[in-house]
Amino acid sequence: MKDDVRRMLEEGGIEEGDRVEVVGMMRRLTYEGEVSEEVKVEGILLPSTELNAPGNVVVKLKNGYNVSIKPTKVRLLEKGRGFKRAEVEGGEAGEGERVIILGTGGTIASFVEYSTGAVYPAITPSDFLRAYPELSRIARIEPKILFSILSEEITPAHWRRMAEAVKEAFEGGARGVVVAHGTDTMAYSSAALSFMLDGLPGPVVFVGSQRSSDRPSTDAALNVLSAVRLAASGRPGEVVAVMHGSTSDTFCLIHRGVRMRKMHTSRRDAFMSVSEPPLGIITGERIQLREDATPPGEGGVVVRTEMEEAVQLLQATPTLTPKVLDRVLEVSKGVVIAGTGLGHMRGELTERVKYWVEEGRAVVVASQCIFGRVNLNVYRTGRKLLEAGVIPASDMPPEVAYVKLMWVLGQTSDPEEVRGMMMRNLRGEISESSSPAGFGEEYYRWVERMGGGADG
Amino acid sequence: MKDDVRRMLEEGGIEEGDRVEVVGMMRRLTYEGEVSEEVKVEGILLPSTELNAPGNVVVKLKNGYNVSIKPTKVRLLEKGRGFKRAEVEGGEAGEGERVIILGTGGTIASFVEYSTGAVYPAITPSDFLRAYPELSRIARIEPKILFSILSEEITPAHWRRMAEAVKEAFEGGARGVVVAHGTDTMAYSSAALSFMLDGLPGPVVFVGSQRSSDRPSTDAALNVLSAVRLAASGRPGEVVAVMHGSTSDTFCLIHRGVRMRKMHTSRRDAFMSVSEPPLGIITGERIQLREDATPPGEGGVVVRTEMEEAVQLLQATPTLTPKVLDRVLEVSKGVVIAGTGLGHMRGELTERVKYWVEEGRAVVVASQCIFGRVNLNVYRTGRKLLEAGVIPASDMPPEVAYVKLMWVLGQTSDPEEVRGMMMRNLRGEISESSSPAGFGEEYYRWVERMGGGADG
Repeated sequence: MKDDVRRMLEEGGIEEGDRVEVVGMMRRLTYEGEVSEEVKVEGILLPSTELNAPGNVVVKLKNGYNVSIKPTKVRLLEKGRGFKRAEVEGGEAGEGERVIILGTGGTIASFVEYSTGAVYPAITPSDFLRAYPELSRIARIEPKILFSILSEEITPAHWRRMAEAVKEAFEGGARGVVVAHGTDTMAYSSAALSFMLDGLPGPVVFVGSQRSSDRPSTDAALNVLSAVRLAASGRPGEVVAVMHGSTSDTFCLIHRGVRMRKMHTSRRDAFMSVSEPPLGIITGERIQLREDATPPGEGGVVVRTEMEEAVQLLQATPTLTPKVLDRVLEVSKGVVIAGTGLGHMRGELTERVKYWVEEGRAVVVASQCIFGRVNLNVYRTGRKLLEAGVIPASDMPPEVAYVKLMWVLGQTSDPEEVRGMMMRNLRGEISESSSPAGFGEEYYRWVERMGGGADG
Repeated sequence: MKDDVRRMLEEGGIEEGDRVEVVGMMRRLTYEGEVSEEVKVEGILLPSTELNAPGNVVVKLKNGYNVSIKPTKVRLLEKGRGFKRAEVEGGEAGEGERVIILGTGGTIASFVEYSTGAVYPAITPSDFLRAYPELSRIARIEPKILFSILSEEITPAHWRRMAEAVKEAFEGGARGVVVAHGTDTMAYSSAALSFMLDGLPGPVVFVGSQRSSDRPSTDAALNVLSAVRLAASGRPGEVVAVMHGSTSDTFCLIHRGVRMRKMHTSRRDAFMSVSEPPLGIITGERIQLREDATPPGEGGVVVRTEMEEAVQLLQATPTLTPKVLDRVLEVSKGVVIAGTGLGHMRGELTERVKYWVEEGRAVVVASQCIFGRVNLNVYRTGRKLLEAGVIPASDMPPEVAYVKLMWVLGQTSDPEEVRGMMMRNLRGEISESSSPAGFGEEYYRWVERMGGGADG
């Protein structure tokens, strides 16, 4: 905190935790870039961290948002209705079930560098525990920083570290584990951890936010509180993500780690379950889970982290030529091709695929539609692909088929075992029949029936 | 028609156009393959074509579906409430505005080969005019077969032929043009024709079906009738598609050719407008268009069909390495990379992108989220990409950015002109601000407000 801000607070007899009125300038992100506007807000003054924008104060509004403001005037409204700074560095805080929060970076743990207006990943788990002190009433929290990188930089090596940290957390007595992760590649990581971990005795809950924690419109508060709530509940025994279910701040959806996708660049409700309804919904303190959610395992966690990295994901477009396919397959062990519709591609590609399958490459066919199910039995094109030896991805989203293929090729190099594992449902990534609520209007109606949705 | 079926009809004094009750076996597609089941239906006996499954009769049910049944019993219910066979071979039929139907193949013009259970493209436009005789009451129809291939086989050469046939059709006095096309690659073709054609004096309406016309659950009837209705209305002056808006047979949505995507492998409501609400909705005879639909042009059609085919679409995944990127860019003039989130990729890829831009390749960055808008100004990663010389795709879906890049590189090779054209809105593919109704629950609410949606 800058000296002039500190002085302003001291002169008013204001401490962290007091209810205050703040007048000042706030930066807001628009499509045209950052704009600065004058605001007057009421809320609880939050503890400052080294990483706050210098010269700013952070205020928690009644609706749960944290706002970062460069103050011109701070007025005391009420003393001490707030909280005490949680002392959590290197230890734990709070009451109830033990929940480990693994920090990996991303927007949920990011701050704005005011010199450039850009967003950097930096806030530590203990920083966001300070920002969301309500957490300590939900569970006994122990934050642990694994690394702090932008999520687009995450590679299989990071997945391994996450999987091992999850095992360690459960072996250390955690009821559940929260993984704070950037949203960009969260679905890749959640799929990877789903396959790497088996027999989970409690939930591994990915959580992120689309707007950083110190922005007025952050979705971090509701997401983090809901994720920790789910982790503390001890259910389900699988990898999931908890993210906003709508554009307002009213409820979160639980998505299965092998069934989710970031479907919008920037909206709070960007994440969707793919080809099935969400695994559950969290409205305030109420957690509802689908009946087929995986029960917690009673043996120990099994970790298998081997991944074949020479795997690529391609999309069958009108100009994906045999030559380009060759150039990719020459340096790959396997490839997932997102075909058109039910899983189709041009005949000349099918010919090349046949060659590469004979050369020992694993070729999986998914659909670029993303939603629905590959079916290679309906059209001649599909039958020829089956004859060429491709492995149909059934109703796995393309990215999940891709991560699964990396993992399967990490476990075995026997072509028949690869085929068998790819086509067998291992973690809920393949379903026998499709729910109408897995797409479109019916998806949102399902959410509404479960108590989420429409708010005005 | 097989002799025994013909005899059965003759003995009952039954002719095409009569209302009949048919008992027999019907094949139905399930995820487990084709199943055969006994059914009893009432409806109008349709004219048989050479391409009907031999030994089957085709009956139009009250709900508009055409059912193909291998009959064991046909009973006359009422004489001649039907229609006369439309004589359209090589000519035109019907009343009102002139509409050209261009046949290209696809499920909308397909039949089931009963020996294998597979679906083949074969029915000619005049065949489906016989199947949907209501068409002749909507417009003066002139069918023309351009080619008959599965839509996954469509390449830029086919786009050129379609564009030229559209120009010819308008110059021949058509009020609108319908393009019957497979759904798999319809969005690529509609984007290609959008860019190739300018100054359209009327609508170019892509139409397809997810189930073939002789299946009990075909969506072809409503789609074709609605598409011809829109074509005959003469509006809008742009390329669009007309497809089911819900899983029931109640209304169609109009999608802008540069804003649509097949989002589900098999549902009738598979097509969605991306990052904007649909361009319009057709409920029965009522056509509603958004206010910003392009008015018909008053000059002539301008056709520019040049396309650079050495363009690829890649997705930034955790294993897309500089080596793989190099192998693709070595044989490409340009590439669209579907980055993560707002348009991100790993730093090592950004370095390679910089090299390839300096080598003269056009590199466009879209988002693998599909919905939303690329914004390279928020995070450091994005700023570095901008410094490397990439062209942001704004809110174009990745496939549209890819088709546009092919077309732009076909018009100019000057890097600054390429950048300028890619970033300028040419056909509605880029919008300045995003509508909340372009994604999620709000999309379906918009449809409902327009009179579509919820039916029980």
